[in-house]
Order: sequence, then C-alpha cells, then structure tokens
Amino acid sequence: MKELVYHRQLLPALERHGSRVGFHDGDYHGTWNEHGDRVLRLASALSSELGVHKGDRVAILATNSHQYLELYHACYLGAGVVNPLNLRLAPSELAFILNDSGTEVVFTDALFAGHLEKARPELENLRTVVLIGEGDAPHDAKYEDLVTAGKPVVPEEPEEDDPVVLMYTGGTTGLPKGVLLSQRAEMLNLYHVAVAVGLGEDRVYLHQTPMFHAASMAAVLGVPALGGQSVFIPLFDPGQALDLIERYKVNQTVMVPTMISMLLHHPSFEPERMASLEYLTYGASPMPGALLERLMEMFPDLDITQGYGMTECSSVLTFLTAEDHRQGGELLSSAGRAMIGVSLSIQDDEGTLLPAGENGEVCARAGNFMDCYWNRPKETDEAFRGGWYHTGDMGRMDENGYLYLVDRVKDMIVTGGENVYSVEVENAIASHPAVGQVAVIGIPSEQWGEQVHAIVVPKEGQQATEDEIIEHAKARIAGYKAPKSVEFRSEPLPLSGAMKPLKRELRKPYWEGRDRSVN
Amino acid sequence: MKELVYHRQLLPALERHGSRVGFHDGDYHGTWNEHGDRVLRLASALSSELGVHKGDRVAILATNSHQYLELYHACYLGAGVVNPLNLRLAPSELAFILNDSGTEVVFTDALFAGHLEKARPELENLRTVVLIGEGDAPHDAKYEDLVTAGKPVVPEEPEEDDPVVLMYTGGTTGLPKGVLLSQRAEMLNLYHVAVAVGLGEDRVYLHQTPMFHAASMAAVLGVPALGGQSVFIPLFDPGQALDLIERYKVNQTVMVPTMISMLLHHPSFEPERMASLEYLTYGASPMPGALLERLMEMFPDLDITQGYGMTECSSVLTFLTAEDHRQGGELLSSAGRAMIGVSLSIQDDEGTLLPAGENGEVCARAGNFMDCYWNRPKETDEAFRGGWYHTGDMGRMDENGYLYLVDRVKDMIVTGGENVYSVEVENAIASHPAVGQVAVIGIPSEQWGEQVHAIVVPKEGQQATEDEIIEHAKARIAGYKAPKSVEFRSEPLPLSGAMKPLKRELRKPYWEGRDRSVN
Repeated sequence: MKELVYHRQLLPALERHGSRVGFHDGDYHGTWNEHGDRVLRLASALSSELGVHKGDRVAILATNSHQYLELYHACYLGAGVVNPLNLRLAPSELAFILNDSGTEVVFTDALFAGHLEKARPELENLRTVVLIGEGDAPHDAKYEDLVTAGKPVVPEEPEEDDPVVLMYTGGTTGLPKGVLLSQRAEMLNLYHVAVAVGLGEDRVYLHQTPMFHAASMAAVLGVPALGGQSVFIPLFDPGQALDLIERYKVNQTVMVPTMISMLLHHPSFEPERMASLEYLTYGASPMPGALLERLMEMFPDLDITQGYGMTECSSVLTFLTAEDHRQGGELLSSAGRAMIGVSLSIQDDEGTLLPAGENGEVCARAGNFMDCYWNRPKETDEAFRGGWYHTGDMGRMDENGYLYLVDRVKDMIVTGGENVYSVEVENAIASHPAVGQVAVIGIPSEQWGEQVHAIVVPKEGQQATEDEIIEHAKARIAGYKAPKSVEFRSEPLPLSGAMKPLKRELRKPYWEGRDRSVN
Repeated sequence: MKELVYHRQLLPALERHGSRVGFHDGDYHGTWNEHGDRVLRLASALSSELGVHKGDRVAILATNSHQYLELYHACYLGAGVVNPLNLRLAPSELAFILNDSGTEVVFTDALFAGHLEKARPELENLRTVVLIGEGDAPHDAKYEDLVTAGKPVVPEEPEEDDPVVLMYTGGTTGLPKGVLLSQRAEMLNLYHVAVAVGLGEDRVYLHQTPMFHAASMAAVLGVPALGGQSVFIPLFDPGQALDLIERYKVNQTVMVPTMISMLLHHPSFEPERMASLEYLTYGASPMPGALLERLMEMFPDLDITQGYGMTECSSVLTFLTAEDHRQGGELLSSAGRAMIGVSLSIQDDEGTLLPAGENGEVCARAGNFMDCYWNRPKETDEAFRGGWYHTGDMGRMDENGYLYLVDRVKDMIVTGGENVYSVEVENAIASHPAVGQVAVIGIPSEQWGEQVHAIVVPKEGQQATEDEIIEHAKARIAGYKAPKSVEFRSEPLPLSGAMKPLKRELRKPYWEGRDRSVN
C-alpha cells in the first residue's frame, strides 16, 4: 500500500484529538476539530474560489501563524503545491521566484503585503493576492472569506509521488532554484525525525524558526499529526519567545544558534523561564562552542540535538543526539550520524567513496530527497550524479559514522541559518560604478555564525564608502545577503588559475585558529 | 530516491560498528565485521553454489541462531526470498508449504533435519537441504562450507518493491497462505516500530520469540542495523532466558504472554535477575490481566508496550505505549493506537466506516502491508476489499483512537502467539472414524491465552477417548493446532442457518464474564 501521504496522518489525528485545544497563536486557541474544519474549507476554497488545483503552485509570504499551518495542511491534503517564500527576499528576487514557478496565487499578511506589492509590476503570472488576517493592505481576496466560502469536504487523496512543496534555495549560479518535494519525501523526513527526536501527544512545540524554512517542516507535519500542541511566534523575538515558553509550558522547539544566543542574552532571560523545555534541536548554521557549553551547563537536563541537512532533503540527514552531547568532547564538533533511512558517503572529485577519516564531499542517499530542481534538469542531474546527492559540504566520517564538516565545496556562506551564495552578492556589488574587483567571503561572527564580508578593490581613481556598498547591495538582494562589513584594498586580489579570486587565501586571516565548519 | 531497502540500513551499520561485538549465540560472539563478512559470503554462495537467485524462495526450518539472522540478512541483501517455517508444522503441512511456494532449497539444523526428512518424499521441488551447525543429520550441503565458498562481495542492490519474505500463515480455508512482503513493507514496519519503541546502540536484544514469526521481524532487521546487540536463545526456555538476560545485561525483548508467564513462574526466577530489562513488548495473544498487573508491580520502571498486528502487515499495526500502561485502568484492556504510518477503521459488513464506540471489523491501511497472498489473487482481493486490509478481528475505537478488540470475525484461535484456524483442526479431527460432528473453539487458558478445544459428537454406536482424538489430530497437523482438550456430547451441535455449528453458543459458557479479546 502506498500510504506515504499526509492525508493518512492528519485525518486520523483530527478525529482522535477532536475537541482538545492544540493551536495557540495570539488570541487564537483552536482545537483539532476547528483546525480540521478550517483546513478542509480552505482546501476546497482554493479550488472553488481561486481555481487552484492539484499541482498548481500557491505561494505564501507571511509571518508564522496558524493560518500558515492551515495553508500547508490544505496543500498537503492535495489542494496545491505550497511555495513558501523567504521573508527577506528583495522584490526582484520575489519576482524571479514567482515567475520561475509560475505561481498565480500568493498568500500574504499586512506586514508583507506592501513588500509583495513592490514586486507586483514584474510578476507575470500572479492573479490573486490573499490577505491573511486584518490590516490595511492591498489584496484581491481575504483569507477568512475563503475559509467561510469553502466546504469542509475531505479532498481526494493525493498519491505518494505527487509534488507538495516547492521551496526555493540559493543557487550556485546566483539565481535561486526551486526544490520540488513529494508527499513521500516529506513523510519519510517526518518518520526519520520522529525516530531521532520523538514526537507525540506530550509535546508542546514552539514554531520559532520561520515557517518558510526547511527546518520547520517536520514540526509543521509531525507535531499536529502526532497529537502535540503548536504554539506560534510571528517573527522571532527573544522576549516574546520566553513569554510563550513560560505561558504554554513549551517543551520542544527548533532554533538556529543565532536565536539561542539572542535568547540567552535577552534582558528578561532567566533559566527558570525555560524550565519546561525538554527537547531542543539546533542546526542550519555553525554552533559556537562557547554558546553550546553555556547552554548545556545552564540546562543539564535538556535533551539537546543537532540536525544537519538542507532544503533538498526536506530538512535533515544527520543527528547528533542528546546522548552524544552528554558524552561531550570531540563529539560536540560533529554533525552527528546518519538518521535511519539515510546513507552517507564521503567522495572525492571523481565520485570514489573515501574511507573513514579522509576528507571529501559529503554525499547522501535517502528517501527524503527532492524529485528535482524545478525545471532545471541539468542542475538536478549534476546534484545527483552517480546516484548520490552532492551536498557541496566538505567533511569526513570517523569509524563510528560521525560526520565532521570542515568546509563548503560550494562558495556559500551560512549566516543566521540562511545560505548565501557569494556569487550573488558579488554580482550585486559589482554593479556599483566604483567597484573594480570584489570577492565575498564568510567571516566568523558570534551572532550570525558567519557574516557576509565583502573585499572590494575600487576602480582606478574611484572610491566608495562601506555604507554605500552595503546600501547598493541591499537595493538589489535580500538584506541578509548584503555584506555586514566591507574592506577596501588597493592591491589586486590573489587569483586562481581560472582567474577567480582565491577565496581560501582571503579567508585565511579571519579563520586562523578556528574551524570553519557548519557546527 | 527509492531507498526503502535493507541494503541502505545494514551496510552502513556494518562499517559503523565494525569491530564491536554485537552477536551472542552460545559460544559465538561475532563483531559486525564478522557478521557482514559471513552474510556477504552466504549471499554470494546462495547464487554461486546453490543456484538461488533474486526472487527464488529459500526456506529455513531451524531454531533461533546467528545463522538464522545471517540467512535473513543475505536474503534482504537481494539473495532470495526467505520462507521461514514454523517449527511446529506437521510433515504434511511442511510439504504443502514447500510445494506451494516452489521452494528448492531448505536450511535446517540437526534438531529439525529429521522432521524435514519425513516430509521429503512429498516435496516436489526440493533440491538441496543445507545443514546449519554440527550434528548427524541428513543434508546435501553444510552451512559453514557455503560461508567458506562464498565471496564477500556486496550484491546488487534490490529494489523497494522486490519481494523479500514469504511467510505462511493459517488460512480460513484450512490451508496455509503465503504472505509475500516487499523490502519496502519490511522497512516501513521497521520505521514504525522504531518510532514506537525506539532502537539504537544502547540496546541489547534477546531473540526469544521464534525467528520464523512476524513478531521477530522488526528486531531481526532493526537491532543490528541500528547498532544494538543481538542475543539468541535457540528455543524458548525460561531458565536459559534468565541466564542470558543476566549475562548480557539484556535490556530489550519481545515476548508472548505465555512466555512471560513461564518466566515469572520459573523456579530460578528472581526479579533482580531481570533488572537490566528496560523495554518489553508483548503481543500476539491475549494478555491475562492478572499477569500484566503482576509484571507491572514487579517491574515498575520497565517500559512495557503491547503490539497488535499480523503477518500480513510485517508485524505491527498498533501499540499500547509504556505511558498508556502506566496510566492503567481501562487502557490496559486496549490494543493501543495506530502507529505512525498506519490508518485504522472499524467497518460493518458493507464496508461502511463506523463511528467511535461502535463494534465492527478492524480494518487497516499502511505501507507495511504485504503485496499479496502468494498465488492467491482471490484471497488477496478479498482481504483488501475497498482498499482496506480486513483483519478478521472485531473491535471498536474510542474517541481517542484506542482500539479495543472484542472478538474475531475469522473463526480463529490464538494460542501461545500462534493463529489456529478452527476449520483446519476440525478437518483433522473429522477424519477420525468415530467422529460424527466436530466443532473447534478457543477457550480461556492462563498459560496459552486461549487453548484449542474440540467438541465432538460421536457417530451413532461409536466412541473415542480424548487422547485418541488428540493423537489423531497431532498426526495430521502441528502439535500446537491439535486440541488441548476434547469434550464429548451426545446431542447434535446447535447449527446456524448456513448449517454450521453456532460457535458463539458453544463458546458462551467458557467465556461468561470474560472478554475474549486479543489483549
């Protein structure tokens, strides 16, 4: 039986948990019955009111909310392919993604409707903007009207191989690529995560990572389906997170290291306020050792796990377990071991599998991988060459299967949990009239793990200030991709044989004595 | 990626755990390296020495051992379809199964080689009998010679949908049916069980249930692949079980209630001897309430779970968790809730889904179900009518999804963890010259959950003793199927409209005040 579809998890959960309250979002406290009713109505309205059918893309540009979860669930019940948009994209990037994906319907909220509006003149396919919640913002339809108009009918069951999520991720070419994920891939990711960290009725989960991010996916699916409560924070705010953890006795959450750091340094932070927390998973960017030590010292009973993965595999490949953390020592600098259902290998440039201890590219096989990059067969074949997904990360495995990441093959920076491809930032900066040569690298940052740093050689007789370069970049790309710092040099940059700046040389002085790894 | 194949779990585990000792079987203490070497050699020898190729059936009639595990793993790596035989089958039943499945190669051991030999004249396809271990027994090849002859080569990877297990189960028609399970079904069963009870490096698992039984499957696959140690007991023996638990600090096992009862009543039993045990799963037959209470009282920290399932779903559909057990009360008489990946429904005779609280037939959908009954398309279609597998058990679900089993639709008795179809026993008894009418029912038994009980109306002027009837049956069917007790009546049995004995009437006096459920 081909049962790897979300229908088979969500619908029984709705019946089973019925009148229990399971969804806390500001003043909204919904039961499973209410949630189910709203999801089914939304799913039917997507078709009857908006003409969205199975396979059609539905985008969402909004902060975390119960409506965000409802839209995901409606799409998972077969109503459409959800295209969750990064909130920090520049209008031109939004336009690229919405045009590339052929998205006709976008859900947004009052906070982001204006941002979407800026991109609208460039949008080739957009028919309908749906406004979530209240507020004075441009829209064509309102979310609550759709929920009212729809019928609470169980939609036809999707097939395992039906695509359900199209999530864009940075591209090495500088353009975002759509990662197309099937019901099956998402369900297997959920199973794998459930084996690794557990999920169930006893869980009260705080959605702190943005819901457009792959790191949220197992919780978006698994928490409600397995009877856990979902608590939403619209945009991460450490003070509000502490309030919510305290109020709802939150016991499980996922955070990126930057968020953990902000939480622990917040003026209203007291360890007692987080006493309910039992399961904390971190990932998506390098974890500063001092931060992890402080966290573990402060919360000795907290089960801390690290996940390593990427959008292409629905989220996770490896876990460093709570037990591994307690064991401590060198293990703390490992990304953990392959989850059940995941095979890892370390490969050289020719695709030869390397033995334990040798560095090479981290490659993986797993049922939770994407079908393809949307409309990019060449990039898809390249990523899966030899039957293995090539992560672009460099690393080694020890004899016990623990993965140690040491560098990235792709010229990519991970800052505050987001991937930034250097070439994209370089393109944005190079268009400034004063810039002769530019190289963008990641440099260590306590707050962001890595921060985007630009090294600029001005054109002869020209000059620019750091602020000018940063502002120039911000006008063209998402704020988080713009450099946090700019360094001007008069000497030409060292070049490789292929006439590209020698990034390793440029990074060296910043990383001396540190390990530029992802954990 | 279609990664639901055991290759992807076992091979990385062999590398990862390498030189650790993980397999204890009498004097054998094998490492993962040794295990891997032996499994790969065996897999290659099956092809090169015995002419067994992918898809060909390989039977095994043997007690639990590391070799049994090796043969399973070799078949899972693609060497063949394993056909594990119930040790208590009569020679004529063995012959039926081996002929029905077209099995050409049978593995056996000194204890069972003679039993197989009795069936040999009837075996149409058998080419080769392989003897596991030492002993003076008829054979065509020796297991260790195969392992020596084979090459430690990684075989070609099977596909998800490749069949890997053909396991015979009693049939309503009185003849056993082969349940054909794919790699995918077995892997999903493993995932579901891993979510429910956990598996991992910290586990030391005692194989107490016979390895031919579906209840062993998740452990056969999951324990070694996830780094846990496997300890083998050839045939269940409570004294030896206690010794092994103590010696290897066993912390996880699966038992049927009969085994638990024998363990607790054994003269050498002391609770301290089982102090290492942390996870105990029981199932496969009704659990007497008094026994469960005693167990829970004696081991308050033990995580006790109950699984309910059948061969057709690779083993498990529902779990009553340790938490549910601790909650106690009415929950203790429940079979628990659907595992992740499993959908349950209660249906009436017309296939209408019934609401919570109403009794009907327990039906299920899940990725861990069989492909089909081997060469029995009619029975397969019947079992899966309406897209749901029909378990033949009667039950209801409460509002929270807890399943309560109340009776069986199929005329079946579950005794000591084995399914016995009444019709099969009735056919065996009816061939006795003195028997006029016979009905076989299950009656309560502290030791076996249910015991097979025959009600016989002798032919006019004829008579027979209880022992004669039992011996007559034992000569024709497996000992566990033969009646444990026989009752003679002079009055004709009450008949249904279809002229069949009214089993409900016959059972009533035995079950008065008890719940004939499966737990």
